[in-house]
Amino acid sequence: MSEIDEIFRPRSVAVVGVSDKVNRLGNLLLYSFVDMGFEGKLYPINPKEETVMGFKSYPSVRDVEGPVDLVVVSVHPERVPEIIDDCVAKGVKAVVIFSSGFREKGEEGRKREMELVERARAGGVRIIGPNCMGLYSPSSKISFFPGMPKERGVSAFLSQSGSLTNIVGLFSNLRGIRFSKMISVGNASDLDVNDFLEYLGSDPETRLIVCYIEGVEDGRRFLKLAKEISKRKPILIWKAGETEGGARGVSSHTGSLSGSREIWGAVIKQAGLIKIENFMELAGFVTVFQNPYLPGGNRVVVMSGPGGPAVSTADACEKAGLRLAMLSEESKRKLAEIVPEFGTSTSNPVDLSLSSSFDVKMYPKATEICGLDENVDMIVEFMPVLSKEIIEGLMNAQKKVRKPIAIISSVEYAMVETSVSKLFGVTGGMKLIETIMKMYESGISVHSSEQEAAKALVALLNYRKYLEKAE
Amino acid sequence: MSEIDEIFRPRSVAVVGVSDKVNRLGNLLLYSFVDMGFEGKLYPINPKEETVMGFKSYPSVRDVEGPVDLVVVSVHPERVPEIIDDCVAKGVKAVVIFSSGFREKGEEGRKREMELVERARAGGVRIIGPNCMGLYSPSSKISFFPGMPKERGVSAFLSQSGSLTNIVGLFSNLRGIRFSKMISVGNASDLDVNDFLEYLGSDPETRLIVCYIEGVEDGRRFLKLAKEISKRKPILIWKAGETEGGARGVSSHTGSLSGSREIWGAVIKQAGLIKIENFMELAGFVTVFQNPYLPGGNRVVVMSGPGGPAVSTADACEKAGLRLAMLSEESKRKLAEIVPEFGTSTSNPVDLSLSSSFDVKMYPKATEICGLDENVDMIVEFMPVLSKEIIEGLMNAQKKVRKPIAIISSVEYAMVETSVSKLFGVTGGMKLIETIMKMYESGISVHSSEQEAAKALVALLNYRKYLEKAE
Repeated sequence: MSEIDEIFRPRSVAVVGVSDKVNRLGNLLLYSFVDMGFEGKLYPINPKEETVMGFKSYPSVRDVEGPVDLVVVSVHPERVPEIIDDCVAKGVKAVVIFSSGFREKGEEGRKREMELVERARAGGVRIIGPNCMGLYSPSSKISFFPGMPKERGVSAFLSQSGSLTNIVGLFSNLRGIRFSKMISVGNASDLDVNDFLEYLGSDPETRLIVCYIEGVEDGRRFLKLAKEISKRKPILIWKAGETEGGARGVSSHTGSLSGSREIWGAVIKQAGLIKIENFMELAGFVTVFQNPYLPGGNRVVVMSGPGGPAVSTADACEKAGLRLAMLSEESKRKLAEIVPEFGTSTSNPVDLSLSSSFDVKMYPKATEICGLDENVDMIVEFMPVLSKEIIEGLMNAQKKVRKPIAIISSVEYAMVETSVSKLFGVTGGMKLIETIMKMYESGISVHSSEQEAAKALVALLNYRKYLEKAE
Repeated sequence: MSEIDEIFRPRSVAVVGVSDKVNRLGNLLLYSFVDMGFEGKLYPINPKEETVMGFKSYPSVRDVEGPVDLVVVSVHPERVPEIIDDCVAKGVKAVVIFSSGFREKGEEGRKREMELVERARAGGVRIIGPNCMGLYSPSSKISFFPGMPKERGVSAFLSQSGSLTNIVGLFSNLRGIRFSKMISVGNASDLDVNDFLEYLGSDPETRLIVCYIEGVEDGRRFLKLAKEISKRKPILIWKAGETEGGARGVSSHTGSLSGSREIWGAVIKQAGLIKIENFMELAGFVTVFQNPYLPGGNRVVVMSGPGGPAVSTADACEKAGLRLAMLSEESKRKLAEIVPEFGTSTSNPVDLSLSSSFDVKMYPKATEICGLDENVDMIVEFMPVLSKEIIEGLMNAQKKVRKPIAIISSVEYAMVETSVSKLFGVTGGMKLIETIMKMYESGISVHSSEQEAAKALVALLNYRKYLEKAE
């Protein structure tokens, strides 16, 4: 799929539907390239203005002097066909059509969309969209929204929803999750979910693929691709439109057919896909599947400073299908050496007591003890205060443990600097992000609730089983 | 229960187990009163030191000149009985025993705890704990942890877990949720969950009760109380220890018997209790049950700027048992007047498009239109950017709508000021908290995911049905 790879690395981009006089959504798209530090040429297209955002403006794509690799279009849908003609005439490789008003608007819109695709294909131009945000790639410095991170992650996001793609990009960054590539395909009239999935499957920048899908046209190809790729890279799938109301939303959103819940259930199972249902799960699951270690079995140690969450996390794990590990007598003895005599428990669930909020070494030490116990396959830790000091200790423990370690904590809270973070003398705020990203790479995941952590770990275990069967 | 009310309003407090020379957990407890601005007398007890934290220190509780209403004890468990004797001799009303090492430590500990209770009861002293944090009440300026909010909320938290109580208090504050009272009862050897539940049931400061429960001794009394109180005040219950692993945790944590899942299921149903399972749900459900409006039925409007979450929220609502409302033709016509022509949907789920992130009036206007439609019982809105401007618009809409409005957004993200919040020109940061609290009071709740919002609204609808039956 070197064609898509070329589309991801444009040397020049024209944006149609921008103005210096009126505030248009196209301006946001143009500014996104500027904000990202795009190093190629940028050409605003507006026949009535001399310059836009300080760049020389051109009457049409045809009038640009040099070659134009990528065009982004944000104009009234009725004007899109003439822009496509311009692109064909200019020899443009691909067009991102931000404009909506096509298939999602009923039969007439669908016809308009099909004509557009025919016109583009005949002229050798590929379409992304319409009704989409387009492409984001830190390595080639292209983006569809301002404020997106400039640093590359190891996961890709492939989505039929546009704004969701911005939201996932912007909000994930606050949780220390970044992306190799993000693709919003919208109505997917030409290049579709399958094309991009195939591309991401062999993209060396991408270790993990997350898809938000409303419906795919060629389900057979999707299944074949997904089956093949998920042997090498985990694929998380957020399938929307599973209910009557949801399916109605899908039809007016991207004009897709959402397909029956039963069929998708079978596809997900056969292809070893990992199902997620909301942004919280997306964030938590990505960190668990970035982790380099697969669990040997379902025996979990639950560890917590506060005793209540030790109990509720134990409940969540067992309800999800994990089993509380029986710690060896030696492990218990070692734990007893590092925790206070009272208000603690050295059997699983392990209760470290309030003291663990003040002694930043207690969690890491207990992690090492439990993680090295041969009766243990993975560890879940409830941790109210997520600080640089504790994270660094845990990363050292993880090097020895080499089993999945999942933390229930709030990265968002850690980002808010309060009197409480000062009280504990811990490092909080945005400075934490780099440390948290290193932690994910080391094998430690972060989750928003005990239920989400347990669900993610069970999914990881199931994925290991899928890989074994698939071999 | 004027006895408990008196315990909540001490005029003088002594703290045993503090030192100026060594950093002890008791210091944290003493400092909590200082930090809260406690206006009564504070007496540190330490026979070897002259002053602690600037307060004159006393050799024992007996040696304090004036009366002592409340004593907080944080010493080795073997030393607790003599402190109780001092309290009896001094005529102290109540003792919070922070110390652990009692019933949760097996048979011997249980005996030690029973002896303690006998000794205290014979001397007319009430015990809170052992193995607990104690009491928090903004109106009498008492607290068990530094950094707790000084302002009073309308919900009470009653918990068998200690540290969980701090965590809920501190973290809820960052989501704009505050408490009338917080009670950590620990092993509940004397004053127990039932006593405090009865008290909170008639406490005029408390409109809503949240319980974290591991097990209660007198289940019959609990059921009777809960049934009676939940007719007047919603009771949310976080029941831990429902699995084998969880129950093992309960036994080493507070030495309770967690009781069978079946029995608790029946209690919860009979008493109209509202079940929650983690902190995210606690926060979201509190805001939905603080809301003054009960839904008339299960017909929901889903509204979103990003189209993907419109679909996934519709799915979540229908899976939880709500039904997507059919908007009237008039409502659709009015919506069409305020949303862009393309990339939007005026039928339910309502898609406001990316423009709604820039036009802060769009969500409020759409809320008013849908909320006044007689086919609609409640509204769920997915809202990436939670700003002062949008909140104020929504509160105005809510005044006319008078139906539950639930928002899926992240208050935590809104607190983190980033380049993105600047881009949208919206007010973020800690200044938002006061606005968010007003929003809750107006009838608007906030949720961490579409599933949690849908679950909370279904619980609210079930509570309305419970109230009707109970009449």
